[in-house]
Amino acid sequence: MSAQKLKIGCAGLGRMGKRHALNFLERTPRAELVAASSPDDAELEWAKVHLAPYGVKLYKNYDDMLKHEGLEAVVVASATAVHAEQAIKAIDANKHVLCEKPLSTSVEISQTVLDAAARKPELKVMCGFSRRFDASYRDAHKKMTQGSIGSPSVMRSQTCDKLDPTGFFVAYAEFSGGIFVDCSIHDIDLALWFFGQDSKVKSVSAVGITAVEPDLRKHNDRDNAVGLVEFYNGKIAYFYASRMMAAGQEDTTEIIGTQGKLTVNAQPAMNLVNIFDNTGVRREIPQHYYDRFEYAFVTEANEFTASCLDNKDVPLKLEGAVQAVRIGSALQESLITGQKIFFDEAGNRVDKPRL
Amino acid sequence: MSAQKLKIGCAGLGRMGKRHALNFLERTPRAELVAASSPDDAELEWAKVHLAPYGVKLYKNYDDMLKHEGLEAVVVASATAVHAEQAIKAIDANKHVLCEKPLSTSVEISQTVLDAAARKPELKVMCGFSRRFDASYRDAHKKMTQGSIGSPSVMRSQTCDKLDPTGFFVAYAEFSGGIFVDCSIHDIDLALWFFGQDSKVKSVSAVGITAVEPDLRKHNDRDNAVGLVEFYNGKIAYFYASRMMAAGQEDTTEIIGTQGKLTVNAQPAMNLVNIFDNTGVRREIPQHYYDRFEYAFVTEANEFTASCLDNKDVPLKLEGAVQAVRIGSALQESLITGQKIFFDEAGNRVDKPRL
Amino acid sequence: MSAQKLKIGCAGLGRMGKRHALNFLERTPRAELVAASSPDDAELEWAKVHLAPYGVKLYKNYDDMLKHEGLEAVVVASATAVHAEQAIKAIDANKHVLCEKPLSTSVEISQTVLDAAARKPELKVMCGFSRRFDASYRDAHKKMTQGSIGSPSVMRSQTCDKLDPTGFFVAYAEFSGGIFVDCSIHDIDLALWFFGQDSKVKSVSAVGITAVEPDLRKHNDRDNAVGLVEFYNGKIAYFYASRMMAAGQEDTTEIIGTQGKLTVNAQPAMNLVNIFDNTGVRREIPQHYYDRFEYAFVTEANEFTASCLDNKDVPLKLEGAVQAVRIGSALQESLITGQKIFFDEAGNRVDKPRL
Amino acid sequence: MSAQKLKIGCAGLGRMGKRHALNFLERTPRAELVAASSPDDAELEWAKVHLAPYGVKLYKNYDDMLKHEGLEAVVVASATAVHAEQAIKAIDANKHVLCEKPLSTSVEISQTVLDAAARKPELKVMCGFSRRFDASYRDAHKKMTQGSIGSPSVMRSQTCDKLDPTGFFVAYAEFSGGIFVDCSIHDIDLALWFFGQDSKVKSVSAVGITAVEPDLRKHNDRDNAVGLVEFYNGKIAYFYASRMMAAGQEDTTEIIGTQGKLTVNAQPAMNLVNIFDNTGVRREIPQHYYDRFEYAFVTEANEFTASCLDNKDVPLKLEGAVQAVRIGSALQESLITGQKIFFDEAGNRVDKPRL
Repeated sequence: MSAQKLKIGCAGLGRMGKRHALNFLERTPRAELVAASSPDDAELEWAKVHLAPYGVKLYKNYDDMLKHEGLEAVVVASATAVHAEQAIKAIDANKHVLCEKPLSTSVEISQTVLDAAARKPELKVMCGFSRRFDASYRDAHKKMTQGSIGSPSVMRSQTCDKLDPTGFFVAYAEFSGGIFVDCSIHDIDLALWFFGQDSKVKSVSAVGITAVEPDLRKHNDRDNAVGLVEFYNGKIAYFYASRMMAAGQEDTTEIIGTQGKLTVNAQPAMNLVNIFDNTGVRREIPQHYYDRFEYAFVTEANEFTASCLDNKDVPLKLEGAVQAVRIGSALQESLITGQKIFFDEAGNRVDKPRL
Repeated sequence: MSAQKLKIGCAGLGRMGKRHALNFLERTPRAELVAASSPDDAELEWAKVHLAPYGVKLYKNYDDMLKHEGLEAVVVASATAVHAEQAIKAIDANKHVLCEKPLSTSVEISQTVLDAAARKPELKVMCGFSRRFDASYRDAHKKMTQGSIGSPSVMRSQTCDKLDPTGFFVAYAEFSGGIFVDCSIHDIDLALWFFGQDSKVKSVSAVGITAVEPDLRKHNDRDNAVGLVEFYNGKIAYFYASRMMAAGQEDTTEIIGTQGKLTVNAQPAMNLVNIFDNTGVRREIPQHYYDRFEYAFVTEANEFTASCLDNKDVPLKLEGAVQAVRIGSALQESLITGQKIFFDEAGNRVDKPRL
Repeated sequence: MSAQKLKIGCAGLGRMGKRHALNFLERTPRAELVAASSPDDAELEWAKVHLAPYGVKLYKNYDDMLKHEGLEAVVVASATAVHAEQAIKAIDANKHVLCEKPLSTSVEISQTVLDAAARKPELKVMCGFSRRFDASYRDAHKKMTQGSIGSPSVMRSQTCDKLDPTGFFVAYAEFSGGIFVDCSIHDIDLALWFFGQDSKVKSVSAVGITAVEPDLRKHNDRDNAVGLVEFYNGKIAYFYASRMMAAGQEDTTEIIGTQGKLTVNAQPAMNLVNIFDNTGVRREIPQHYYDRFEYAFVTEANEFTASCLDNKDVPLKLEGAVQAVRIGSALQESLITGQKIFFDEAGNRVDKPRL
Repeated sequence: MSAQKLKIGCAGLGRMGKRHALNFLERTPRAELVAASSPDDAELEWAKVHLAPYGVKLYKNYDDMLKHEGLEAVVVASATAVHAEQAIKAIDANKHVLCEKPLSTSVEISQTVLDAAARKPELKVMCGFSRRFDASYRDAHKKMTQGSIGSPSVMRSQTCDKLDPTGFFVAYAEFSGGIFVDCSIHDIDLALWFFGQDSKVKSVSAVGITAVEPDLRKHNDRDNAVGLVEFYNGKIAYFYASRMMAAGQEDTTEIIGTQGKLTVNAQPAMNLVNIFDNTGVRREIPQHYYDRFEYAFVTEANEFTASCLDNKDVPLKLEGAVQAVRIGSALQESLITGQKIFFDEAGNRVDKPRL
């Protein structure tokens, strides 16, 4: 006899795909990874060693995987460009979907996933914003909800990557949607989570530079950018994104309320070790976002699984994923044009600030 | 087709037993929890809900569990008083054994486990000192081994529990072996790990008080104790153990070398959140040792499993477990008699210090 | 026999005036406070107790003090509204001048002090930006200059006051020039110091809210504001100013370079004490800016004195004080109008961003 | 007219003498440094440049300085060997005395200073334990007194110097009284301050090593030592002293009470700067005790001066200085003999522990 498990397949076996596949295989007790797909031969070779021996069926073609006998859910962890298409196909095939962020770098395409999901209300469709599953962010959110800081009013949040000396992120920028859509999307999602999912944007403005990679300009991107977002509910958020941190990944958030402040990761640390030597007192910090958020992804896999099996709401609404791309795109536009962008309360662009 | 898994049974389903059972069930991909035993009906009721549905066979009697078809290994997580007996029975039944610390509060009984294991060199027998599996301690040990701090010379280490206002630890003290055997055993094991498993004790001395629970005196125990251990290799360790921390669990270690120092958990923190309010800047800390060492136990389960399946040495030698009890017992004796205790290099007690 | 001392008078004996007077009296060995003036009787009463017994002559009228026999220098610590007038009178009377910031909330009036100083190049005229004298900021600046972080590219800096529950800052806002001119002026000065005094502004934009004091709006001010400043040298700075911190004064700065980052006061602390209790681990932080910067003011007094006595350049150029007011005023305007403001390289306003 | 100032002379112009002289000259407004003495020509040359121009009369002979017209007080900052003699001479000449710690490395000689002071109750005689004047230690003491941690029960305190690669401390050890008398004396004084000046010692035991300077053994000293002190009031203190810190001066104290814990300097830091680079996040720490305690010495000078001028009790009792040497000497003896030492409640040595 055995308890029911969610039969899930993993689409894409790149860097994130491998992690999702292993998390569903090894660290999600109520799920059973039954299938995985990738068009890439090297990725499939990896899967033959790490997934197949545990009963995972491998597919070169995503559409074939969707037909896998008994498949109930799909985690879409492929290239961003095909997120929306694969998610919609899965929905149409009556599978629950956990889709890596973003649904798409385009607001319109993101919306098509929402539309597809709306047609199948019985399915669980979730876009994975990992920070929502991080224990520290959750603790901060709970404390805020309990009133620890009065009314939350100002958010500062940053997503800052360690400098990749290979400059890989230049080529990557061609399809990433830009630094605000690729990095700050997490911070934007946090603002919506902490300020309320119905917060309406009043204005956005942004500036940026290319301090280390001037070539980013050809893809309309920057390596450091700061953005301001003003909401109609009297709250403001400001974001910093960077590709050039020296010490490691620095994803920090502050929520400032009328009676207090909460910080998350204001003092980054890899672990609990400090080294005292003739240079002073030192600690190491996470090198990449997965170092920092590994267990958030595990929690995400488990909670998505529970939502499907127990027919409960997924922990975050799909609408938010479109909203975050909308704000990120506006910030990216402001970054490139240098113009501040104004919105009315209905979300339409207007020429002048509403005072 | 499926990769081979280690069939393991869990002896004891108390606080730690439940955790070990769930870790082998859910978070040890290469193991299969096939059986669990407890003489306690309430514990078995819990197991009917949390283990049985996943195919785990339950036994009221440990000896019966040992006869479970195909059982290859046992995790002994019962009361300390039966650790040694159950471990030896498992060894005699040709099972690999992961035994919770300590093997016994008695040096002599601990030694009988070693003797049993020596008769079956093909079996993996390990006593679980959780800190050996903690990422921070491992990082510190690696850095020391790589020479970051020159020659390690002095260790400060403490195991300090949050005050349990129920005073449960008074009754517990009757069988715990005392605060040095129950708490400082971890710090002693760390000293042996960092200074070398062959470090020979030259002297021990200890003092202690009952600041919150005078009743501990009837069990020859104290609620706060400090011990000094001097080794023949020119190194010293000093330990603090307490039952009355106000903020939470505070297990801190410093390793001071001739060219630097490593600290582990000198600034305890539950997570990455800081709260700024009108009392200042505040963070919460782990409340119990499992809050702090949860993932160390998961790693322990996985590495023990890998040792069994791949026929590799277990990560820590069983001899150390006896050695740690020997030092802990001497410290406890010094704590109670008030006398300093001296040893010659062969480990025999002598009357006077060797200078 | 005695070494020469600088004979100095203090104009204004309000909160800052008292501090400057006492610093020159007690903590500036090479200066001699010979005179002090205030139109306020209560302030003069204070001075009769704390200054007069040590030989300080008191004046109700500033102009009279300027005629004090042998007076060589004046520290202007009166209300902001008379800073410029008193500074110019002192210059015209051939006194060295240390003027509290800002010279004026008006760019034009600030400039008149510069003009006056330019006519008397033999005099030392300095506007006191206290952070330039703070040991931590100086250490950070030195490390940056030595190349620790590569090329400085992005600055984040904030000046955040503890909430004053009396709401005094509402009345104060009538004359303060607004939160960017009153608070962020320090951060702006830091940006000029770290990025180069000749950094030319390309654009400014700002948003703000009144989270705790809606009445600030009648003085065209806000209680929380964020501003972005873009420079023509490819650097950006972003500032946060607030009147509603719960824990205390939080003045924090980060300088992000192409190869590293320096933070100043990212983990504020009043002293070296931590309190562990059942709420967690806690530390207190400075309550007001003088708690934080007391010794910077002492250093300022001593270095200004040395400049006068030894005929050396003052540590910071007077031009910067006008430049900082110019940027602060533009940010304040953007905060109120909601419009982004653009400049050409000559400092003239233009309609559109220069891309 | 001028307020009365305390006319003080400084005996000794070595490292600490220079600091005391300058503190009384420049940073003690109510004192006037009128004289200084040193038998050392190089020190007198320094004084001709730094003290004489400000009206300080220099003496090669201490006895001559004592006859300086109008001299009211003496700060004894000479070599430890002459502390007691000079202090007694000053007392006999009716001068107030601030004497650097320790009065002497001998308990008996220390007592003679007490006896001399007892004969002149109108004089202020103080032994300067700098930590008593440090803002952080005072804050911790105040919090303890206010009940923040319940009943203080256990103290951990360490005085750890940065390794001096010249090995100067080997020669220094000949006269220092040993590491417990020279370094831990501060921690011992803290224990008496926090536990009560009337705390009676029940036992002491100590162990130590020579990890970096074996030559210390010829002076009966060690470079790392740990000591345990048990008091009759049910409190315990444990001390660590070291000469081999790599990062800088690390003087840390924890006071553990029945309801909380206070730490002082558990996270040492030179200033508020953090450096993020490819080695991680780093801060520098004080290099020497004066870096750490500079302002404590200034406070000490000012409070001693106020006690003399206002005829108030000095902030710490002279008896404590003898008591601290007594405990330090016993620890040093235990360190060398390897024996634990026991006392009865009257302070007499006994053979066995009192249980």
